[in-house]
Order: sequence, then structure tokens, then C-alpha cells
Amino acid sequence: MAEEPVQSVHTASESQIRRAPGPRADENTIYIGKKGIMSYVLAVVTQFNGGAPEVSVKARGKIISRAVDVAEIVRHRFMLDVKIKGINISTEELTSEDGSLSKVSAIDITLVH
Amino acid sequence: MAEEPVQSVHTASESQIRRAPGPRADENTIYIGKKGIMSYVLAVVTQFNGGAPEVSVKARGKIISRAVDVAEIVRHRFMLDVKIKGINISTEELTSEDGSLSKVSAIDITLVH
Repeated sequence: MAEEPVQSVHTASESQIRRAPGPRADENTIYIGKKGIMSYVLAVVTQFNGGAPEVSVKARGKIISRAVDVAEIVRHRFMLDVKIKGINISTEELTSEDGSLSKVSAIDITLVH
Repeated sequence: MAEEPVQSVHTASESQIRRAPGPRADENTIYIGKKGIMSYVLAVVTQFNGGAPEVSVKARGKIISRAVDVAEIVRHRFMLDVKIKGINISTEELTSEDGSLSKVSAIDITLVH
């Protein structure tokens, strides 16, 4: 897409954003990490307000529930006209430190404005 | 539906099934709890083998990722012809012990054979 890339939110101090795996934003995708849930909610809202027609919320492993939380909070509390376009689940293969392969579930929730 | 209800699986001893929140099965629905992931995988496979055309895997809160794990393990490792019919996410209201209301995210993954 030729759209201007939307930068991640700056809810906390820059140092905190650098330290923690923050809400990365590329191609209208928010990757859920270990920051507070509202950081990701704000990242989604910011992308929509910046003109993105769709925002994809992605997470892997045990934090999949946080992706669901983000989608639910966005559409029920902040942007009532946002709807769920689709939800995909998949299995990704990760190479661990010792070189062994492990599988992890992933979710991709696509929201539309 | 007029189908014969499919009972929950018996992977472990009966006492263990009584003690832990097990895979409850009603109306072709598997509710994810705190048991080992393979208990729920086996519960889904058992329902399909018992003739259920669809099985719904449900979870709430932080164990939502386990529902995704169950669906992924069933369709990639045990029943390769099982597909995802649909995934719904929602917000449920729970009353805590002190009477206050809290909200929790939920997922419902519908698998078809």
C-alpha cells in the first residue's frame, strides 16, 4: 500500500517504549506484546484515525487472549462503528535458542472501520 | 438437536475428572478449562467420531489461547479434514465474589468435519 506508515503510539516515556516490546505498527498491523493493554487499544484507534480502513491485531501463544481483549475494548468502548471483518488462527513454527523447532498458535483479528 | 448427547472423555481416572474442571460436553460444545490440552483435543475428536457435524470450542479470559491450541492441534495433527467454520469473539460479564461486575473476553471456534 502507498499509505503513509503510521508510527507506534507514545503513551509512556520513550525509554519505556524502547525497553518493552511495544505496539509495532506496519501495514496497519498491531502486534501484541507485553505492554499494557491500553497501549495497543490506542495504537489501533490511532491507525483508524489516521485513515486506515482496516487494522489487523496479531498475537502468538499465551497472549492471544490479549489480542481478543484489544479488539473487544476498541469496538465496545472506543469506536462503536468498528466491526470484526475476520478472525484467522494459525500455527507458526519458532526456532528456539538450542535450534529445536517448536510450534505456537497465532491469531489475526482484522477490524474494519 | 435430537442427537444423542456425547459424554465427556475419560482420559484420566474418574476421580481426576471429577476433581478438575474437565472437558464438559453439551450440544457439541467443548468448554476449555484447566486440564491438559490433550484432554480437550480428545474431547473434540470424540465428538466428531460420535457423529457430530460441528464442534464448538469455547474459552474465556487468559485461556483463550488454549482454545486456539486445541483447534489447531485437532485440524493439523488428528483430523486433517476438519476445517474452521467460524470464529467469534465476545465480551461476557461476570459477577465476582464481592458482587462487582467484571468483563472478560471469550472465544468460540466452530469446527466442521
